[in-house]
Amino acid sequence: MAIAPTSRFHGVIPPVVTPRSADGAIDVASLERLTKHLLDGGVNGLFVLGSSAEVPYLTDSERAVVVSTIGGVNAGQVPLIVGANEQTTNRVIDEGRRMVELGADALVVTSQYYAISDANETDTHFRAVHAALDVPIFAYDVPVRTHYKLPTDLLVRLGREGVIAGVKDSSGDDVSFRQLLLAARDIPDFDIFTGHEVVVDGALLGGAQGVVPGLGNVDPAGYARLYAAGASGDFAAAASEQDRLADVFSIVYTPTPGRVSPGAGGLGAFKTALRLMGVIDSNAMSAPMIALNDSETAAIRVILERNGLL
Amino acid sequence: MAIAPTSRFHGVIPPVVTPRSADGAIDVASLERLTKHLLDGGVNGLFVLGSSAEVPYLTDSERAVVVSTIGGVNAGQVPLIVGANEQTTNRVIDEGRRMVELGADALVVTSQYYAISDANETDTHFRAVHAALDVPIFAYDVPVRTHYKLPTDLLVRLGREGVIAGVKDSSGDDVSFRQLLLAARDIPDFDIFTGHEVVVDGALLGGAQGVVPGLGNVDPAGYARLYAAGASGDFAAAASEQDRLADVFSIVYTPTPGRVSPGAGGLGAFKTALRLMGVIDSNAMSAPMIALNDSETAAIRVILERNGLL
Amino acid sequence: MAIAPTSRFHGVIPPVVTPRSADGAIDVASLERLTKHLLDGGVNGLFVLGSSAEVPYLTDSERAVVVSTIGGVNAGQVPLIVGANEQTTNRVIDEGRRMVELGADALVVTSQYYAISDANETDTHFRAVHAALDVPIFAYDVPVRTHYKLPTDLLVRLGREGVIAGVKDSSGDDVSFRQLLLAARDIPDFDIFTGHEVVVDGALLGGAQGVVPGLGNVDPAGYARLYAAGASGDFAAAASEQDRLADVFSIVYTPTPGRVSPGAGGLGAFKTALRLMGVIDSNAMSAPMIALNDSETAAIRVILERNGLL
Amino acid sequence: MAIAPTSRFHGVIPPVVTPRSADGAIDVASLERLTKHLLDGGVNGLFVLGSSAEVPYLTDSERAVVVSTIGGVNAGQVPLIVGANEQTTNRVIDEGRRMVELGADALVVTSQYYAISDANETDTHFRAVHAALDVPIFAYDVPVRTHYKLPTDLLVRLGREGVIAGVKDSSGDDVSFRQLLLAARDIPDFDIFTGHEVVVDGALLGGAQGVVPGLGNVDPAGYARLYAAGASGDFAAAASEQDRLADVFSIVYTPTPGRVSPGAGGLGAFKTALRLMGVIDSNAMSAPMIALNDSETAAIRVILERNGLL
Repeated sequence: MAIAPTSRFHGVIPPVVTPRSADGAIDVASLERLTKHLLDGGVNGLFVLGSSAEVPYLTDSERAVVVSTIGGVNAGQVPLIVGANEQTTNRVIDEGRRMVELGADALVVTSQYYAISDANETDTHFRAVHAALDVPIFAYDVPVRTHYKLPTDLLVRLGREGVIAGVKDSSGDDVSFRQLLLAARDIPDFDIFTGHEVVVDGALLGGAQGVVPGLGNVDPAGYARLYAAGASGDFAAAASEQDRLADVFSIVYTPTPGRVSPGAGGLGAFKTALRLMGVIDSNAMSAPMIALNDSETAAIRVILERNGLL
Repeated sequence: MAIAPTSRFHGVIPPVVTPRSADGAIDVASLERLTKHLLDGGVNGLFVLGSSAEVPYLTDSERAVVVSTIGGVNAGQVPLIVGANEQTTNRVIDEGRRMVELGADALVVTSQYYAISDANETDTHFRAVHAALDVPIFAYDVPVRTHYKLPTDLLVRLGREGVIAGVKDSSGDDVSFRQLLLAARDIPDFDIFTGHEVVVDGALLGGAQGVVPGLGNVDPAGYARLYAAGASGDFAAAASEQDRLADVFSIVYTPTPGRVSPGAGGLGAFKTALRLMGVIDSNAMSAPMIALNDSETAAIRVILERNGLL
Repeated sequence: MAIAPTSRFHGVIPPVVTPRSADGAIDVASLERLTKHLLDGGVNGLFVLGSSAEVPYLTDSERAVVVSTIGGVNAGQVPLIVGANEQTTNRVIDEGRRMVELGADALVVTSQYYAISDANETDTHFRAVHAALDVPIFAYDVPVRTHYKLPTDLLVRLGREGVIAGVKDSSGDDVSFRQLLLAARDIPDFDIFTGHEVVVDGALLGGAQGVVPGLGNVDPAGYARLYAAGASGDFAAAASEQDRLADVFSIVYTPTPGRVSPGAGGLGAFKTALRLMGVIDSNAMSAPMIALNDSETAAIRVILERNGLL
Repeated sequence: MAIAPTSRFHGVIPPVVTPRSADGAIDVASLERLTKHLLDGGVNGLFVLGSSAEVPYLTDSERAVVVSTIGGVNAGQVPLIVGANEQTTNRVIDEGRRMVELGADALVVTSQYYAISDANETDTHFRAVHAALDVPIFAYDVPVRTHYKLPTDLLVRLGREGVIAGVKDSSGDDVSFRQLLLAARDIPDFDIFTGHEVVVDGALLGGAQGVVPGLGNVDPAGYARLYAAGASGDFAAAASEQDRLADVFSIVYTPTPGRVSPGAGGLGAFKTALRLMGVIDSNAMSAPMIALNDSETAAIRVILERNGLL
């Protein structure tokens, strides 16, 4: 049960959010402070241009700014795992190439979306991306966005043949996640991350190599403690830290349903918390998403205070 | 983290499958042997007329036979939690009344289905059922069947007001499950069960009071060991037992997709395993479901053998 | 294109709603008046115990009252097509037998629900129901409730082999509906009905034999005119009548979202309109559904008035 | 009922498919022949870079080649309505600007996808796109790809305020389509197109201004006849032509399920038919989609022959 990191990709790898100024531009200074905040918090890697980065909303040039800014602060301290977020195979390859040039150590790639695809095409898709790009490829299972669940047997086959280096699981399907952990246990240097904030202790208990928590932007040190407890086999401590973080996570339920979209609510809560903590200057969101308002911010303040984060 | 059972409803409470003879009738003798097998395995309760019992497929009279057969063998040794499976409020109340007369110690009730309902009606639904029936009511969250996810805040409110005595969670949503455990932690005598076979260690780590595993028909002693490990705080042992049970659970992937329906596949695998183990006489299924065939049975035998169950 | 009714099941066959008194009991006198209102409106059949009848919410004894009340008023004037609404094959057969005893001329049967089934089992399901019951069986395609779309090729095969006598299509999938009409065109005595209120002209243009509109409770004569126009090939007149009825149908959008459930809203609007028209005495709904309130009623009054129904 | 084209955007506007050579490159010569084939068939406009063009799979540079090739052959004969297919608002604006520079007369824009959005953001989205770009914007309702159904009231409001010039409806929801036609009837220069091949007669009967049928690549003259019949009020002739085209459309059911993805099957059938007809040179698909094989091609040949297209 003790977690032996099998590669340099393991541990706490938060998906870095993208601060914007009130005028809508990327706020580079805030992004630099946030990156430093995460590194100071003891994270083991940085997931750049993930969903938490609002990557769907960033233009091509904004994506470049984000990667180079984070890369500049990081200066090689931890691995940069970068999302190559595009609809289909050839567009992913084009995007991935740009990201590698910008300094990505590994890429995170979803199945095709908007396209109406299937398992055979998804197999071809990952093989083509792997063949074209000279960095480790992590499969990103996020059916709430792609509307396609990556089949466990496909992931295991691609892992065993060296096509993918691991999986970032945001499927919300804990049964298939456990089966994947079990089935992939003997694949060398294959790393499986959960993308869910509040079940990390169970994921580590099942043998996961890492966690990519959006909430890790807010409390990287908390996730570092949780991971350390799990890695040392002290699951009572892990569960206790997890319960605390689950309460912190309740900030994502503060946005008023109907006023703020489901996509904007959680990310807006992370940004609002970071602003309250003084890490970033504004909780502005990418258009057309709207920022949390004063009453939502006040509710978040209460939660942060009762958890010792303010 | 140590699990303190808060009521007589806790621990391993398998959903008893319903053996049939090849001619389609309920096989009472096999059901009696199965009940004894479960009690001998050390279970803490019996969930009667659950999805694993093929309850949707049983006629009214068959349901009565099943409850009285199990009740007869059990003779009060462990609590009988019985499904009152019907479409809507008044029909659930009628069905629940029959089940209480047949000896149910508690009832398991889903939200309405086939009906197109919402949270307000679901609140009214559980209150009406509770008001009409004089036994504890467990809410059964099974969106794969009802196509409605029970909201966490609704469950907590109903629990806090004494309308429901607990939750059987088969939602497959481990994030909301953890939030429910956290939010309901201070409700006295409120018991939360996971219905998923392969994430029980994590559920116990999060504070769940019990587990209702279909696979518990096949290996009740394994789940009893898993629960005991979790209850004593030895999560390394729990995870190890869970991994073994996750491998046993792979019997549900042996049916040929397309030949056997998703509903029939898992239950058919449990029945086939029980037949191989000599607990029941036939793996016949309720019409129109079909039984697993010889090659599927052979695959199950391999899995049972490598896990020491044959 | 001219529609030649191929059997006694054709034309306007409204799904009769179930009036209740404020105390929750079936309001038999109102149901009798409603049945007369429909027959006076020139309908060609009566669909009894459909979704519009709130059939999921009726207890067994209430279902019996509804069928015999309608049957009594109808006295054989038009065919009674009765829903045998249950979860699975054997339960449908039990229910269907009761309905035939109560006077059903034909039965309407969905695929299994709550059960997790597939095409093979659905084929077996309809064959078993047909074999057990000595009346024509109509397949009811209502995926919004069953969460399963009946495949066109299955319906055509069952029709060609005489297992089903037709289809009531509430699938909302106009493409598959047209393909079904085309594929089944040469099956003798096979009748296809649309369950949708506002696309009847197009359905008739495509060759549908009938329509089962919930809104037909409110304006049976309007649907009779629409059907007659289509049957005579005057599609300009059909479309004009359809547009008027589509405006009447906007009563279903008057309930406040969030206050009234999706299931209760449309049916509540029909009942409220019938109460305003003096056909029934109360717009009470089956528990746990709530009735439309005064402001919703006022909005319905406006729509009825501008369409000459008050 | 007579359809009075209210603007230059009306009638048959097929979504032009994108021929590729066996080596995977855009086959410009075939695309030129196809464009001429469509213009010769009497179409009223060309929908460029739609789903049928495999737009999700085209790289940025390929998209430019397609638009300029079609534009070159068309030389202003009919309007070019071009898809600006991107995930989110600012990316759509960037893409739309490129398309306008390449000669688009109007743009087709979906709601955001991959992003998790809502009605408020969708409203902002269309307003921002309209404000940034100086051509008519058509809203494209394609929930099977975006997983979001554009609400009718939103479309009507955006139309009434001049934000959008019309709607391309591929929602498969004929009820909401009819309500949209009715609600938008009095908006000047607002054009509503159905994207469905087999219900065009009904759409015209309901008042639709045009049709964007993928099958129009194969039989543009058939759709021109269907539209002309509808425009002249001869709906018997329209239905008859529609039934013939529904049979031609059955080519999309020839690909073997499981072998060919749902996305590749229909488009592959159109391309295969065009190859059999000698309009394009290859039925190659964009990676990772695979082309139809010989037996699937043979089945398509039969359908084309019995409908007089070979």
